[in-house]
Amino acid sequence: MSTKLRAAIIGSTGYGGVELIRLLLMHPNVAITSVISSSSAGAPIADGYPHLNQILTDKLDAVDVDLIREKADVVFLATPHGVATELAPKLYDAGLKVIDISGDFRLKSGEVYEAWYKHKPADAAYVEKAVYGLAEVFGEEVKGASFISNPGCYPTATLLGLAPLAASGWIDLKSIIADAKSGVSGAGRGLSLLVHYAEINENFLAYKVNKHQHTPEIEQVLGRLAGEDVVMTFTTHLVPMTRGILSTIYVNLKETRSEDDIRELYRSYYEGRPFVRIRDKGKYPATKEVWGSNYCDIGMSLDPRTGRLTIISVIDNVVKGAAGQAVQNLNLMMGWDEATGLAFTPVYP
Amino acid sequence: MSTKLRAAIIGSTGYGGVELIRLLLMHPNVAITSVISSSSAGAPIADGYPHLNQILTDKLDAVDVDLIREKADVVFLATPHGVATELAPKLYDAGLKVIDISGDFRLKSGEVYEAWYKHKPADAAYVEKAVYGLAEVFGEEVKGASFISNPGCYPTATLLGLAPLAASGWIDLKSIIADAKSGVSGAGRGLSLLVHYAEINENFLAYKVNKHQHTPEIEQVLGRLAGEDVVMTFTTHLVPMTRGILSTIYVNLKETRSEDDIRELYRSYYEGRPFVRIRDKGKYPATKEVWGSNYCDIGMSLDPRTGRLTIISVIDNVVKGAAGQAVQNLNLMMGWDEATGLAFTPVYP
Amino acid sequence: MSTKLRAAIIGSTGYGGVELIRLLLMHPNVAITSVISSSSAGAPIADGYPHLNQILTDKLDAVDVDLIREKADVVFLATPHGVATELAPKLYDAGLKVIDISGDFRLKSGEVYEAWYKHKPADAAYVEKAVYGLAEVFGEEVKGASFISNPGCYPTATLLGLAPLAASGWIDLKSIIADAKSGVSGAGRGLSLLVHYAEINENFLAYKVNKHQHTPEIEQVLGRLAGEDVVMTFTTHLVPMTRGILSTIYVNLKETRSEDDIRELYRSYYEGRPFVRIRDKGKYPATKEVWGSNYCDIGMSLDPRTGRLTIISVIDNVVKGAAGQAVQNLNLMMGWDEATGLAFTPVYP
Amino acid sequence: MSTKLRAAIIGSTGYGGVELIRLLLMHPNVAITSVISSSSAGAPIADGYPHLNQILTDKLDAVDVDLIREKADVVFLATPHGVATELAPKLYDAGLKVIDISGDFRLKSGEVYEAWYKHKPADAAYVEKAVYGLAEVFGEEVKGASFISNPGCYPTATLLGLAPLAASGWIDLKSIIADAKSGVSGAGRGLSLLVHYAEINENFLAYKVNKHQHTPEIEQVLGRLAGEDVVMTFTTHLVPMTRGILSTIYVNLKETRSEDDIRELYRSYYEGRPFVRIRDKGKYPATKEVWGSNYCDIGMSLDPRTGRLTIISVIDNVVKGAAGQAVQNLNLMMGWDEATGLAFTPVYP
Repeated sequence: MSTKLRAAIIGSTGYGGVELIRLLLMHPNVAITSVISSSSAGAPIADGYPHLNQILTDKLDAVDVDLIREKADVVFLATPHGVATELAPKLYDAGLKVIDISGDFRLKSGEVYEAWYKHKPADAAYVEKAVYGLAEVFGEEVKGASFISNPGCYPTATLLGLAPLAASGWIDLKSIIADAKSGVSGAGRGLSLLVHYAEINENFLAYKVNKHQHTPEIEQVLGRLAGEDVVMTFTTHLVPMTRGILSTIYVNLKETRSEDDIRELYRSYYEGRPFVRIRDKGKYPATKEVWGSNYCDIGMSLDPRTGRLTIISVIDNVVKGAAGQAVQNLNLMMGWDEATGLAFTPVYP
Repeated sequence: MSTKLRAAIIGSTGYGGVELIRLLLMHPNVAITSVISSSSAGAPIADGYPHLNQILTDKLDAVDVDLIREKADVVFLATPHGVATELAPKLYDAGLKVIDISGDFRLKSGEVYEAWYKHKPADAAYVEKAVYGLAEVFGEEVKGASFISNPGCYPTATLLGLAPLAASGWIDLKSIIADAKSGVSGAGRGLSLLVHYAEINENFLAYKVNKHQHTPEIEQVLGRLAGEDVVMTFTTHLVPMTRGILSTIYVNLKETRSEDDIRELYRSYYEGRPFVRIRDKGKYPATKEVWGSNYCDIGMSLDPRTGRLTIISVIDNVVKGAAGQAVQNLNLMMGWDEATGLAFTPVYP
Repeated sequence: MSTKLRAAIIGSTGYGGVELIRLLLMHPNVAITSVISSSSAGAPIADGYPHLNQILTDKLDAVDVDLIREKADVVFLATPHGVATELAPKLYDAGLKVIDISGDFRLKSGEVYEAWYKHKPADAAYVEKAVYGLAEVFGEEVKGASFISNPGCYPTATLLGLAPLAASGWIDLKSIIADAKSGVSGAGRGLSLLVHYAEINENFLAYKVNKHQHTPEIEQVLGRLAGEDVVMTFTTHLVPMTRGILSTIYVNLKETRSEDDIRELYRSYYEGRPFVRIRDKGKYPATKEVWGSNYCDIGMSLDPRTGRLTIISVIDNVVKGAAGQAVQNLNLMMGWDEATGLAFTPVYP
Repeated sequence: MSTKLRAAIIGSTGYGGVELIRLLLMHPNVAITSVISSSSAGAPIADGYPHLNQILTDKLDAVDVDLIREKADVVFLATPHGVATELAPKLYDAGLKVIDISGDFRLKSGEVYEAWYKHKPADAAYVEKAVYGLAEVFGEEVKGASFISNPGCYPTATLLGLAPLAASGWIDLKSIIADAKSGVSGAGRGLSLLVHYAEINENFLAYKVNKHQHTPEIEQVLGRLAGEDVVMTFTTHLVPMTRGILSTIYVNLKETRSEDDIRELYRSYYEGRPFVRIRDKGKYPATKEVWGSNYCDIGMSLDPRTGRLTIISVIDNVVKGAAGQAVQNLNLMMGWDEATGLAFTPVYP
């Protein structure tokens, strides 16, 4: 145990935190040494999550930077927006490796952050230090970094579905529309009528139309890949299921390309990356096919009638869209194989 | 009872047929006089649908045009594609009022029908006679008609969400994308792995991407309303729920219009029609809000950043998308108030 | 309209209240004249329940006995336990017909009420006046009554499944076990982690084992029917669905009876009652077969190996288990046919 | 790889088979060397299960005893009832270790098998050889065995919930009732109307009342533990969810025991066994708390009013009720730690 990397998890009682626990318990190189919750400190974590009975018998620690520094080498922040703003810099300055799963350090512009999140932005100096951990796109930057801002769930599915094309110059950047659908766990464990069972079961709806805070995150990355500003349409919907995101992405091609060429572009872009799987022609992924795993599966169809390309990208929002990608980033930071502790099969059915 | 209109339902053992039974049993002016099934003739309908025990004790009749003519004044065809092709003309020629819920008489071009449905098209002379029963758009044509082709479920949601704009000349007709999501009942009662519970529960997927046979139906109507040919992108997804369709529609405006102007256009277009409800600014409908009812609820958002309009349109696919609209069309055909027998509240939750 | 009975609903913003609205809107003899909510008075009811847009445009009234007396002839209380305790007597004394859907007037013993509900019991004089409205069992008492205590959802399913046997003397009263399962709407619209979507979806659990407050209600009625005290085992479970209760009931027979004899006993007991349907030998009802309707369907199997009888009884908890039975009781109180406004078919699928 | 145990899976395209694949891929001591399907031989397994893309690229082998003997050391049969009857003896005689997940070798009496399964029973000589692999109860017999008959899903949940008491002599053996509820995956991947999504979603029902073939399996084991014949009531229900079984078990005590005594009996019986977790007083397990894992969680409540004990036992039917327990049995057969490859956390939420 002494040779394992010691990990602390702030926000252990949220869904992102508890999934980090599941994944890190399977990780051969990591030991969980502190599970932290500001709201339930002192109670055994299994009190609120009985599935952890006899598996993780620890009591929850309070948030205490000195204690974390003493107990851990790396700290994950799986906290609501606005908490890491203050906390992550302190942890970073204390010499800890920091992986922030919240949105607080993703947007390089404080102004944009404030406009979409309605929170005060983090200190720009720390925002600058934070590496955006979209592992298959910016993995080289993640290697050796000490402070990672983990991508949002919708951006992960949408950006992995768009990155090869955004970098290729083949598409009309003004034409991008992403119609995204998410399972209910994305809304977290906090109670709200929106995700009250009797309201969302046997129901499907759009929410935050043209207002979702993940919009500028996707635009920022697309802009970086394309080398020019991108403004896009992004819509989010809630699906009556617990896990899974599917993003249906529409783009117009600037010039004629065959579907085969585009598929080849994707396969080449993601070559050697274990967690992106490109479907063959005529095959489209379902969210269940990545359920519980770190995969992102992508299919596509070019319509000769319209010249428009439709891309389908799916992830498990709690794994690849949060805790799994965080562990993947940890692997890259530490110089380990990126699939360490993550090479498990989706749970089907 | 003798003064009631006598109705026969062919395909009574499918979901569309059994919903027609539910609705017609509540209709003050109609009596169900024959429930018909080619596969289960002779058996009581309640054997296969125990919820009808002591409510409808009839045995299923075989398909027999003479018998139908004798027993009924109006006949509904709730049959798989390809059945009405042969049967509807015979029923029509026998002097019955005919309402076909299948896709067999919707497309005016036999060539287009064959390309998308992979079936031989119906006799063009009868296709010509069939009035497309999108009640809020072509209601005037339905009045007094004897042969109705009832719209598809996806087209109903999508077209009601687009009709005012398609007729207005305000939008770029090349820009139309409809990203539609349906509950599983749309796939019918026929067994298939796609809708096997353990496969589609806790799952979300796209299917028939760029291949769905409802595409030309939507394009045909949009073209008729716009006065020029329309080609659009249409994507269908399966939601792990039984009933409901939500269509998220994206269009670019040709010139600057305010969201208020557009909402006013919709309210004006649907004025006096009881089953279309336009949501106020910032409000978007959920499928559950029309569950079990004949309503189509529509919300919209104009994004000033992109100039693109997003429209959200929801229906219950089994009611407004099939049996309910068929009854609404019957009401119009007969000169009754169009809400007769349909003025019930959605079931919530 | 002036000839219709005027109805007020207290607790209109709960699931029981909103279902009463749905049902009364379909009732030919009743007009809803006041929808009342202590928490949301002044707001249009459709703000919180958009499915009511353009259907019920009323604003919510505050709880005001004088106003109710002025506006209504009958008042329904669809309130949490403990509210009707004080309110129902005042409404009754004001000359209103009162139908209380809560548990406050069901238990004849204040001591028992307090032990199970952990609330102060209602005034014994009013408890005495309240007629227990299990319509198929005590319908004669309901006729002409002015104050009805509407049965609980679990008791309705369980008691209708047991009443003929309890009254027959055929069973060992010490042997009764009811293993009941309910959809999530039974927990109401109040937020709680138990019915948070991501917690209860894809989950099944038992709760309040040996502690559920409906236990003494069932025992009280069984005791009354049997003519001696009954103590039974009653277990409640939560099913990941919105509506429906299924109660699996086990009893030992005191002497040998054939399954046919027992089925005949049930059919005879419920003869002429439109809402109880007894299944044939080898057939068992599913909750979906009564979904959205006022039916209670019952099946049974006598095991020759053990001599034990298993009874399966299903209802829609929101209809027959609450609002529907309340309307049925109103019909009986008013001397109308008990199915008035309730003769609609279950929604399937 | 050469030092790993080589495993073949017959019936790889069923849910039990595909779950074995998931689990064995995580097992440090086992390599999957042949995935076998009589119906799909020659096709890549990922064609029918796209979640296995790039994870298991093998083509399906046909059923061929010689080939299996060549490629594998142990063979799992995850086949429908009636297949292993003929096949398992041949595999055993060929010198393979055999783990049969079907019901074909569970019942020691061929007559009882035929009465409940309506199939011809297996050769009694081989039935005799087959060790019943309820790991926490008969683990000592499993160690070193070569032919395991893996328990059924319902029996696993029910027997683990009853074994300590059955062996104790404390209960009235005539009083046992198990009211069991299962997710839909238990019905397998074969299409049927019962598990067609639109039929079983938002539905709950009992099936095979007093007829389920797992009844004699439970009785056989209880009888063996108790030292006398046991006849019990066993009811099965279908829950609208994919995975999970909850068995609610009722027994009468023969003499007065405290709930604490009984809980202590259970804790002592399962001491040192990693996969059975006994809940504290007043706590009851939910199926989601063992989802995707090999745990069986048990809670209990003794009702002082009736003297009856209620036991709640939950498992994941696909893991502990099938593939997981099969791997656990393999571990025991091989002399490995029984949790090898199975020590993962339930997936929550």
